[in-house]
Amino acid sequence: MTDQALDFSIERLGECRIPSPMTGVPFTGDGERLLYHDRFEDIRRFLDIGADPPSMELAGPRERIFFDPTAIACGIVTCGGLCPGINDVIRALVLSLHHHYKVRTIFGFQFGYEGLVRRHGHRPLELTPESVSRICELGGTILGSSRGPQDTGEMVDTLEELNIGILFAIGGDGTLKGAGKIAVEARRRGRPISVIGIPKTIDNDISFIQKSFGFETAVAEAQRATYAAHTEAAGHRNGIGLVKLMGRDSGFIAAFSAIIDSQVNFCLVPEVPFTLAGLLKSLEERLRRRGHAVIVAAEGAGQQLLKTAEERDASGNVKHGDIGIFLRDAVKEHFGRSGMEISLKYIDPSYTIRSQPANPHDSALCLLLGHNAAHAGMSGRTNMVVGLWNHRFTHVPIALATRERKKIDPEGWIWSSVLASTGQPRDLG
Amino acid sequence: MTDQALDFSIERLGECRIPSPMTGVPFTGDGERLLYHDRFEDIRRFLDIGADPPSMELAGPRERIFFDPTAIACGIVTCGGLCPGINDVIRALVLSLHHHYKVRTIFGFQFGYEGLVRRHGHRPLELTPESVSRICELGGTILGSSRGPQDTGEMVDTLEELNIGILFAIGGDGTLKGAGKIAVEARRRGRPISVIGIPKTIDNDISFIQKSFGFETAVAEAQRATYAAHTEAAGHRNGIGLVKLMGRDSGFIAAFSAIIDSQVNFCLVPEVPFTLAGLLKSLEERLRRRGHAVIVAAEGAGQQLLKTAEERDASGNVKHGDIGIFLRDAVKEHFGRSGMEISLKYIDPSYTIRSQPANPHDSALCLLLGHNAAHAGMSGRTNMVVGLWNHRFTHVPIALATRERKKIDPEGWIWSSVLASTGQPRDLG
Amino acid sequence: MTDQALDFSIERLGECRIPSPMTGVPFTGDGERLLYHDRFEDIRRFLDIGADPPSMELAGPRERIFFDPTAIACGIVTCGGLCPGINDVIRALVLSLHHHYKVRTIFGFQFGYEGLVRRHGHRPLELTPESVSRICELGGTILGSSRGPQDTGEMVDTLEELNIGILFAIGGDGTLKGAGKIAVEARRRGRPISVIGIPKTIDNDISFIQKSFGFETAVAEAQRATYAAHTEAAGHRNGIGLVKLMGRDSGFIAAFSAIIDSQVNFCLVPEVPFTLAGLLKSLEERLRRRGHAVIVAAEGAGQQLLKTAEERDASGNVKHGDIGIFLRDAVKEHFGRSGMEISLKYIDPSYTIRSQPANPHDSALCLLLGHNAAHAGMSGRTNMVVGLWNHRFTHVPIALATRERKKIDPEGWIWSSVLASTGQPRDLG
Amino acid sequence: MTDQALDFSIERLGECRIPSPMTGVPFTGDGERLLYHDRFEDIRRFLDIGADPPSMELAGPRERIFFDPTAIACGIVTCGGLCPGINDVIRALVLSLHHHYKVRTIFGFQFGYEGLVRRHGHRPLELTPESVSRICELGGTILGSSRGPQDTGEMVDTLEELNIGILFAIGGDGTLKGAGKIAVEARRRGRPISVIGIPKTIDNDISFIQKSFGFETAVAEAQRATYAAHTEAAGHRNGIGLVKLMGRDSGFIAAFSAIIDSQVNFCLVPEVPFTLAGLLKSLEERLRRRGHAVIVAAEGAGQQLLKTAEERDASGNVKHGDIGIFLRDAVKEHFGRSGMEISLKYIDPSYTIRSQPANPHDSALCLLLGHNAAHAGMSGRTNMVVGLWNHRFTHVPIALATRERKKIDPEGWIWSSVLASTGQPRDLG
Repeated sequence: MTDQALDFSIERLGECRIPSPMTGVPFTGDGERLLYHDRFEDIRRFLDIGADPPSMELAGPRERIFFDPTAIACGIVTCGGLCPGINDVIRALVLSLHHHYKVRTIFGFQFGYEGLVRRHGHRPLELTPESVSRICELGGTILGSSRGPQDTGEMVDTLEELNIGILFAIGGDGTLKGAGKIAVEARRRGRPISVIGIPKTIDNDISFIQKSFGFETAVAEAQRATYAAHTEAAGHRNGIGLVKLMGRDSGFIAAFSAIIDSQVNFCLVPEVPFTLAGLLKSLEERLRRRGHAVIVAAEGAGQQLLKTAEERDASGNVKHGDIGIFLRDAVKEHFGRSGMEISLKYIDPSYTIRSQPANPHDSALCLLLGHNAAHAGMSGRTNMVVGLWNHRFTHVPIALATRERKKIDPEGWIWSSVLASTGQPRDLG
Repeated sequence: MTDQALDFSIERLGECRIPSPMTGVPFTGDGERLLYHDRFEDIRRFLDIGADPPSMELAGPRERIFFDPTAIACGIVTCGGLCPGINDVIRALVLSLHHHYKVRTIFGFQFGYEGLVRRHGHRPLELTPESVSRICELGGTILGSSRGPQDTGEMVDTLEELNIGILFAIGGDGTLKGAGKIAVEARRRGRPISVIGIPKTIDNDISFIQKSFGFETAVAEAQRATYAAHTEAAGHRNGIGLVKLMGRDSGFIAAFSAIIDSQVNFCLVPEVPFTLAGLLKSLEERLRRRGHAVIVAAEGAGQQLLKTAEERDASGNVKHGDIGIFLRDAVKEHFGRSGMEISLKYIDPSYTIRSQPANPHDSALCLLLGHNAAHAGMSGRTNMVVGLWNHRFTHVPIALATRERKKIDPEGWIWSSVLASTGQPRDLG
Repeated sequence: MTDQALDFSIERLGECRIPSPMTGVPFTGDGERLLYHDRFEDIRRFLDIGADPPSMELAGPRERIFFDPTAIACGIVTCGGLCPGINDVIRALVLSLHHHYKVRTIFGFQFGYEGLVRRHGHRPLELTPESVSRICELGGTILGSSRGPQDTGEMVDTLEELNIGILFAIGGDGTLKGAGKIAVEARRRGRPISVIGIPKTIDNDISFIQKSFGFETAVAEAQRATYAAHTEAAGHRNGIGLVKLMGRDSGFIAAFSAIIDSQVNFCLVPEVPFTLAGLLKSLEERLRRRGHAVIVAAEGAGQQLLKTAEERDASGNVKHGDIGIFLRDAVKEHFGRSGMEISLKYIDPSYTIRSQPANPHDSALCLLLGHNAAHAGMSGRTNMVVGLWNHRFTHVPIALATRERKKIDPEGWIWSSVLASTGQPRDLG
Repeated sequence: MTDQALDFSIERLGECRIPSPMTGVPFTGDGERLLYHDRFEDIRRFLDIGADPPSMELAGPRERIFFDPTAIACGIVTCGGLCPGINDVIRALVLSLHHHYKVRTIFGFQFGYEGLVRRHGHRPLELTPESVSRICELGGTILGSSRGPQDTGEMVDTLEELNIGILFAIGGDGTLKGAGKIAVEARRRGRPISVIGIPKTIDNDISFIQKSFGFETAVAEAQRATYAAHTEAAGHRNGIGLVKLMGRDSGFIAAFSAIIDSQVNFCLVPEVPFTLAGLLKSLEERLRRRGHAVIVAAEGAGQQLLKTAEERDASGNVKHGDIGIFLRDAVKEHFGRSGMEISLKYIDPSYTIRSQPANPHDSALCLLLGHNAAHAGMSGRTNMVVGLWNHRFTHVPIALATRERKKIDPEGWIWSSVLASTGQPRDLG
């Protein structure tokens, strides 16, 4: 992304005139900002042309707020695939809105954006501190989810009818873009509705978010699959364990799984191309040398090998051919031809991973994301997401967060660590 | 099994003349026996015809043993699919043989019965208390495994060459039958070689064994999959979670998974037939009533629906068509036709389950199985397995243990509990 | 216990005239019984004197029941210390009473027997399938608990006022005795009130119950403490890890912890006396030989060393001096005097263990105990507990279950396995 | 810390003339640096006086290295208390030195700095990829540990005798200071010995290290204790759960435990003073309002209440009176006097927490710390630690890292989140 594109300014509904009902906590000043860059040479480029270096607004409770908490309802919606921690975020939002701000009515819309469209007939749930008290011990989302967009006008109609002041949208790329459209439509209608996104991407692929919630839980869970793959592989002559992990466009889960589980010998991600011949040659060498091997493949890896026409799912994501099944069959065929007897076990743990409850670290992350989202909404910010940068919580415009996906840099330290940990050749091509 | 078939007498290599080197533990008398039946009416039938009611020899250390521990080597072999606890059994055998009996040489044969056949070229490992000290924290088998029989003569040749006094075979139905053949061949050659089986069946389907090692760990792990299935199902409109679990001939894992996880709505096992139409009708009713459903299917369930020719795998087990894939496709097709929009998630956790380390309960079971197997072998018993009956460890002839598989009784308390827990109709036909 | 004492006959409120509303499950016949003994010589003693060998009634749903389920309310009370699985039992009772029998009102009494005494002011909770749906994922008891007896008359008054037909009491020795008194008082008043106990003893020390719920979870959790003790011990020169576990009168948890975790070198239980000098001598030898040691002590072990006056807690249990603190100080003092530099770490994990949710095995056990308790109550049985014997669920009179505690037999296979696993001297005296 | 103190320059043994044997990975340039500050106003202060803003050297493999890997041995020592992940760091060092650099001899010194002093008689272990292969699955340290300093000269003698080129010291504040002295003494002798520290502090209290290894595992494990405390508290009338956690000088573990487990009502840390009267008043209010309460106290909290003389342990840390025992007794006494019947359960899980194996996140962190420490040592850097800053690995001089402890800022976002999460009064004074 070019530096020129880095506009971190946050849209606001109006002036904050109401004293915050929160007491006993330090407030964050509106001018407190965090540098986007962390190398001096990057910053100097801006100084050299007389510009301020790009920086993000820090999240946190404000001393004065925009909304009268007793005069509005709030709404929460969860969209897209499951991800550890969604219920934690719902709970944190409800607790903060209720206890910190004394908001009286909080609606949970059911089954994603469908729940915002009256004709689908899903009645919004009323959420209270009691009803959300222990939901963080459960995986999934108590609100249900669905994929794909709905009509923006109909959704804003519902928000108006229910007197929603702040809508919190928990979801990925498509969901956030949809949230942005709601914010724009509300502005067009002159309705002061704040739309705050909490980025949900188990793949950790949203820009300007150093680590998204659920990612650590997913990587930890993935280790159960790579452990099984290694155990199966090591338990048989020429055993091969093949694990397909999540990661359509970015291979962060696969990469960290390879770093964590040193029994992984090959890590395949969308960002680093490989050829089937290159992989098979390296795999055969490994088998001859050590007698077993473990391969981890992100679902978006090696897509050029699958030659599928461009299809898209209900959320608008490009549909991928199944690299796991493809590799399973290709490896079996190869060694069948070459006469080397192998034992391949294929594991696809995706649903088991994504339906876990958040681990303690992710729980804390979700709590703080939820609190800061509530603070941002009450202060009248809109069309933004709550992010995490350099261990601090920040505000990022939706437009910026969704402009392009975050990817592994094949020249950076993550991929370098994968290579150092797996010992796989840099070039499997 | 008819009562007449219940011959629990154990083959012995000869008289026990050597005092056991074990000290400080109570010994088990050779005449100590456990009743096979637990209802008086069953016992009375024997008394009425002047016969003794059937009973099993109790396992345990004997005061006098058959082998001079310093004069023999022992061997351990692990065969068939992985199962939690194999390494625990290996370790228990090594520790007992070394510490209790002072056996000096213990070989671990690699990759199943292949490791007993010289021309395969797998060198036996020498096992010591140090080398097995913490292997129980690892899943799988440190010895490796393979399926299928090998030539009995060649295997006995190897045992003779290595001066093996006792061979411990950890494996399922086929493995135990192979062990029985080794015992017979050794007897034919006049070689005093004891062959002791430790029944390994994650499916818990070996007769005269109330609970086999690894079964509880497997059921506990399976809960991760049913949890995920429920979370996914509940998170979507008309969500269906479908889990395929192990259980080729007996559905114990599926049944206990349904009892444990009350979110399971349908449990399908080999022992209880159903029709596709019956299942789909009930499933549709459930969706209309509650909006989501979880199905658990043992891999051997509904085989008549799959119409596969009878194929057998390398171990001689009948190969099954894949009921999981079949149901996944049949359910999708049905609701596609009927126009009811569903969201089905299919989970096949088998490899992840069976490669887990044993849980604490299974660890204890494995330790005691291993100790008792060592005691049985040192006392010159042969052609038998160590079993568990009414919370006691017993000796069971291989012929009896492998005559037929243990199955769920559709009229008994286990299936009754499944029906009470799932609420599924007794007849899905 | 002498054989003459074995009266397993169950008290019943009257004839069962009402057809069970349960459908689609096999019923248990009233005459189905399970032998108490499992050795033929024990049974022959009875036959020789012309008596029937003792046997227990099998639990299970009956075809005809005593109560009209629509005409009564039911009550549940939980007493004494926490134990994994209490919430599972509550849930199973509510689901069975509601779904199997269509009972309309189920009360949960709060804070133990206090909740049955009106003047304490704890309002009973109304329990429904919804309110108990996921409580099995939580440790503890949603009803709260308390120790000690309450006035029997006042409690029966409350039962009468609330039209309670069946009271389910989940608790240990003292609770069950209290439940027996309630049954007697109700009978005296001519009120058909069934009192069914579900034995709760994390120590696994109730007679005629082969394994009580929560015990396996407790043993598994205890392993975390022994693991830590070993890790600390092995990480330091002359490191000693000392773990105090539950077990006031019976050392089952300590014994199984020693069997499961082979790093345990000394296991001390109430059933097997030892002297301090004997322990210290053996411990010092172990340190000189191996450099570290792990000791597990049941809380009731070595009480004769503590010379405390006989005090009793609110539940009437003998209060024990703290063997953990005593040993910690005695060991430190000994090696301080002897000049051997040690590093002792003392771990007391009791509260963390007992507040865990049940593991999958215990969950299944609790479900089946709860179902069978509901069946027993609906059939008009009273003054009894639901037990587990030889893998079957049975009915046991309260008087028999509470007559004496189940203990480890120092000559039996459990203690023999502890000695074989730890390698500790049989005599630490 | 004043800005002037921020000297991040790293001491180097000499020029790097030898090409790195690593292939297939991107190298880090020597000039690549990371800004220490993340707010523009902090950076501008330096620019305004014509100075460069402070920055840290980035860690990573260098294209040219200082040592000839085949000509030196390397040494590893672990000191101080246990912490999850030590074995992971040992393993990462061995694998990197062996595979990346082809170092032939790697010594593991036993029992901390004692192992570096010949007269203690602990023989160094020789570490190989095989011997460390699966040690990351174990808690503790395979090398053993000890507290306290040893004679620097004797230690350098040993390093010289064994031809150690790089010494890796895994330990806390005191250990790192000791490592610094070794570096200085080696320089004084003109011996090119690199000394690289890997900061180990379960308390997360070392400056310039955003998150130390083991911290996340510790926080996750601590949740087991707070969960138990809440379950016990909620299970009894006026139940109080009191948990003492690690944190002598900095309360990060207690603070994050309170953020993660929303059942925590009071969090006490060394950085935020409180009075006993203030705490008891607030606690009593909470009990009257909600019936139960959970308190988490860092071990260094409320030290002024304990009035202990300043004692120091073998590592030179100030010895603390036991705030857990103090609070337990003070709370009991208070409510005993006031006549309010409470049920207090006190839990001290420290040993169980610190002896856990690292969780997956910490495993990855340890792997990367170990790799980067190896890279730093091979490049001839010395007297430094490997740190983590803004998600990147960096080099920090030992003098800077140990100058003062990192503490919670009572005005910052962490404490603010604790207050928001617990709802405790800002002032417990």
